[in-house]
Amino acid sequence: MMKLQKPTPMPFSKYKSFQDRINLDMRDRTWPDKLIRKAPRWLSTDLRDGNQALIDPMTPDRKRKMFDLLVKLGFKEIEVGFPAASQVDFDFVREIIEQDAIPDDVRISVLTQAREDLIERTVESLVGAKMPTVHLYNATAPVFRKVVFGFDGEGYDQTRDIALQGTQAVMKHAESLLSDADFGYQYSPEIFVDTEPDFALDIVGSVLDMWQPAAGRETVVNLPATVERGTPNTYADQIEWFCRNMPYRDEVAVSLHPHNDRGTGVAAAELGMMAGADRIEGCLFGNGERTGNLDLVTVALNLYTQGVDPELDFSDIDEVIHTVTECNQIGVHERHPYGGDLVFTSFSGSHQDAINKAFADREKKANAQGTPVDLMEWDMPYLPVDPKDLGRSYEAIIRVNSQSGKGGVTYLLKSEYGLDLPRRMQVEFSRAVQQHTESGGEVTAEEIRRIFNYEYLPADDREKAWGRFQIVGLRTESGNVDESGSSAERIEVDLIVDGQERTYEGRGNGPIDALVKILIDQFDVDVRLQDYSEHAIGSGADTMAAAYVELAVEDRVVWGAGLHPNITKASLKAVVSAVNRAARDRQA
Amino acid sequence: MMKLQKPTPMPFSKYKSFQDRINLDMRDRTWPDKLIRKAPRWLSTDLRDGNQALIDPMTPDRKRKMFDLLVKLGFKEIEVGFPAASQVDFDFVREIIEQDAIPDDVRISVLTQAREDLIERTVESLVGAKMPTVHLYNATAPVFRKVVFGFDGEGYDQTRDIALQGTQAVMKHAESLLSDADFGYQYSPEIFVDTEPDFALDIVGSVLDMWQPAAGRETVVNLPATVERGTPNTYADQIEWFCRNMPYRDEVAVSLHPHNDRGTGVAAAELGMMAGADRIEGCLFGNGERTGNLDLVTVALNLYTQGVDPELDFSDIDEVIHTVTECNQIGVHERHPYGGDLVFTSFSGSHQDAINKAFADREKKANAQGTPVDLMEWDMPYLPVDPKDLGRSYEAIIRVNSQSGKGGVTYLLKSEYGLDLPRRMQVEFSRAVQQHTESGGEVTAEEIRRIFNYEYLPADDREKAWGRFQIVGLRTESGNVDESGSSAERIEVDLIVDGQERTYEGRGNGPIDALVKILIDQFDVDVRLQDYSEHAIGSGADTMAAAYVELAVEDRVVWGAGLHPNITKASLKAVVSAVNRAARDRQA
Repeated sequence: MMKLQKPTPMPFSKYKSFQDRINLDMRDRTWPDKLIRKAPRWLSTDLRDGNQALIDPMTPDRKRKMFDLLVKLGFKEIEVGFPAASQVDFDFVREIIEQDAIPDDVRISVLTQAREDLIERTVESLVGAKMPTVHLYNATAPVFRKVVFGFDGEGYDQTRDIALQGTQAVMKHAESLLSDADFGYQYSPEIFVDTEPDFALDIVGSVLDMWQPAAGRETVVNLPATVERGTPNTYADQIEWFCRNMPYRDEVAVSLHPHNDRGTGVAAAELGMMAGADRIEGCLFGNGERTGNLDLVTVALNLYTQGVDPELDFSDIDEVIHTVTECNQIGVHERHPYGGDLVFTSFSGSHQDAINKAFADREKKANAQGTPVDLMEWDMPYLPVDPKDLGRSYEAIIRVNSQSGKGGVTYLLKSEYGLDLPRRMQVEFSRAVQQHTESGGEVTAEEIRRIFNYEYLPADDREKAWGRFQIVGLRTESGNVDESGSSAERIEVDLIVDGQERTYEGRGNGPIDALVKILIDQFDVDVRLQDYSEHAIGSGADTMAAAYVELAVEDRVVWGAGLHPNITKASLKAVVSAVNRAARDRQA
Repeated sequence: MMKLQKPTPMPFSKYKSFQDRINLDMRDRTWPDKLIRKAPRWLSTDLRDGNQALIDPMTPDRKRKMFDLLVKLGFKEIEVGFPAASQVDFDFVREIIEQDAIPDDVRISVLTQAREDLIERTVESLVGAKMPTVHLYNATAPVFRKVVFGFDGEGYDQTRDIALQGTQAVMKHAESLLSDADFGYQYSPEIFVDTEPDFALDIVGSVLDMWQPAAGRETVVNLPATVERGTPNTYADQIEWFCRNMPYRDEVAVSLHPHNDRGTGVAAAELGMMAGADRIEGCLFGNGERTGNLDLVTVALNLYTQGVDPELDFSDIDEVIHTVTECNQIGVHERHPYGGDLVFTSFSGSHQDAINKAFADREKKANAQGTPVDLMEWDMPYLPVDPKDLGRSYEAIIRVNSQSGKGGVTYLLKSEYGLDLPRRMQVEFSRAVQQHTESGGEVTAEEIRRIFNYEYLPADDREKAWGRFQIVGLRTESGNVDESGSSAERIEVDLIVDGQERTYEGRGNGPIDALVKILIDQFDVDVRLQDYSEHAIGSGADTMAAAYVELAVEDRVVWGAGLHPNITKASLKAVVSAVNRAARDRQA
């Protein structure tokens, strides 16, 4: 008997509950009843918060690639750097202004700390921009006030003074250098979620009183969860409380800035929007310090799958991934929502089967309604979004491994090779595929086709040909049933049997029947036809016929397949295929 | 002027809001006021749902490694396979039972579809297990009933019959083959979140009526979000509604099975626990179909950082990552919460500075209280968890690139080399580091040390030695201030000056003062001492002294550093270091 394991617990007592610490009574919250019906204002901070978190920060060239991508995707607010902290950032801001790379409807913003020399330099970087915003932050959370800055007591006054002096300096330098611009101001109490709610309200109120928000005067209050601290509902409570109590609510955009330390950044953004926020900040695919900033791609496409216009264009998601990976030198994980290599992939047999049937049903309904299939309402098992909407192809959806069932195999044969197997044949063939895959590993569509050829069309494969019978020639003659009652269809087949070619003649009510009779009469094989189906592959001169037959051969039921431009020959090849397979299995 | 971009919107109208579709009135919900104070029952489905989603499913050897890891981490419920669907899975279940690899307090479970032949084979796989559970699922959501199975009308009755016949078959075969075991039964209506709430309740109630839950009779109702459909609060509403209305609530464990299609699987699990669930299913680091199953590591460590015992042991997270990566052949992303390579890394200068100060403060408080520093309450800016608790080292926390400020540089010099620079010298030196890094790229601690040596200790580097002065020998003589008032400290230094070695004699009220006087009198260098500090590095015979001096040299203020086992010589070397640097800068 195994000994019971009794692990030493990890030292959990050194941590305290975030909710207990914040202790905000929001029993009258309203956000859980809200639905998001409109995209928020998006701000990309890929070039600032994202860039500063890279092992290898972007070169000017990579910065420009990222900026151009963001513009192309439809971002109207882009934080482009921290110019007073980095010469590279300063130069980049100058470059996009001087080269006129900023569309008229795009606002750029830059971050600064609340020191006058830094603010002056920051404002200088923006000269010539049409819609520039200065984003000022200072540390307001207790651990900063007490430990990092070492203020006496609670340090409220010193902290408020820093924010107010900073705001005043921004106003002064903007007035002197940016008087022609549609200048905007953004303020962030850092770290909002850790700051006592009353003090966050106090300092933001003081800053706004100085700045004087008004219609047409761009003003943003950004409420960062620079470190994610609690479950996402806690952030939503904090946001709803703040929106409810802040001054100038109608003149100010309330902005979220979630990070992802607890893996719930996307949820925090969604619940925060429900709680009243107007705007969210984040990065493409969640780049950013540590676990990253909020992933804007996921939030946007989450809205999309609920029928909301995301106001961003991810219709070529692979291109976005390509550029982001090049700029950040960090990849997108295989399972990253919407973008990962595996997220439109189904390996499970039952999932594949369901997807397969639902696609067929969708196509049928689209044809019946005369609606283009890509615009049909999306209600697909196991696929929350249509891969085509993101520029992905259906072929990537289903991949087959040893855990897969007939659904995936069937789907791939049909989508890649046009082979549409009857249902009972799918079951038979998927078992054959599974035998080839139990040892592990993915099976490509090409391998599935190879297994299909080996199983059903061995004679076509000169290298590994097997099977007792092979059809080489065929002549048919068809007439009315004659007076003697003999069958109307006469065939002459040239068969190679056990290596010897000979011509046989047979009659029946159709060519298959005639061939079956030849097999029974000449070779004493007990064969009964059970099922038959056929379809065309391709069109025009290249059209092939695919025929499938189910035969009872002695005590076994087996399927056979035949492919040939001539439909009759295809069906006779299918009969021979089944008979050969039955003979092989008997020998095994 | 750039043309305004007007992108074609993506075809969002083909999607419908999930919440509108479900339309559950939960205005009386209570979960947003709940806090999670206890770990849930954890079930790992790494070997089932995780394994079936791999490009390259686990070999028997990799399966066993994963199983042993799960046991070691403290999992008491492990879903070990889908034995009726895969011979490899069947054999693996037999292996761990027959080799007695399952601890007595660990329950294993296996998945099956609701077909009697599959159920019989499933039960056979469990013979000999002490605490086996059969997990039966059938498809209950409308798209399955109507499209995949093509039932007439709503298909409620056919669907319920499948569940009941399956339950009956499980009971029959378990009674006959597993009568000695503590047998458990788990039922999943698939996909719960897409199923009409009333029908989910109906079918679960019918299944439970047949199974007859009772105290001591292990029963789980699992409510899968096999595809994540809506914001996570919607799942919580569905769970609270179900818990409130289901029969046998006290005798049944309600289990969550979230996936991560919208990137909010962790949030769905957390809100679902608040809504009343007892148990959650998922995989390590969120492996699983498409975007993956719920990531159990993140949920467990999220609880941990709130002071809740996770009842799982992640104190060596790198070992977990190593095994998971080997078994799944899929890596953990750099920014994955708790596990990624970059999640304890701070590149931002202000973040580094804050972490640096807070660590110093924590150490000081621990010493004052006599508490081991690792057990001190954790309240650290930018680090939601103590990396040491996960077996990560502090050295990994801070990394320096061109965006970093003095905090990171200072931290690395101190933590890696014991060099504790005075504050103004930190500012000076970090500028020197930034000059070396503006071209991009990360700077290692080793490179920072190399830059430090080059800047401050050039004479110690025989290859790249630079600087006008170099101290080679030193003799000191110290006495009382004599009657004539001349200084009490007399030194003789052997200096190499412009390549020529000579001995100089000087007096002062200390050795530094004496050397300064030599420099002024003999070489006409205008030098005034501004600041001085020193500390020891190491202990015992290897102790070195590090000395730092700030000199005003003509119109410039520069720092110098000296390292030497002899504290006096270290401080004189620091003076020479500063004078050399001032001379170099004047030449440049």
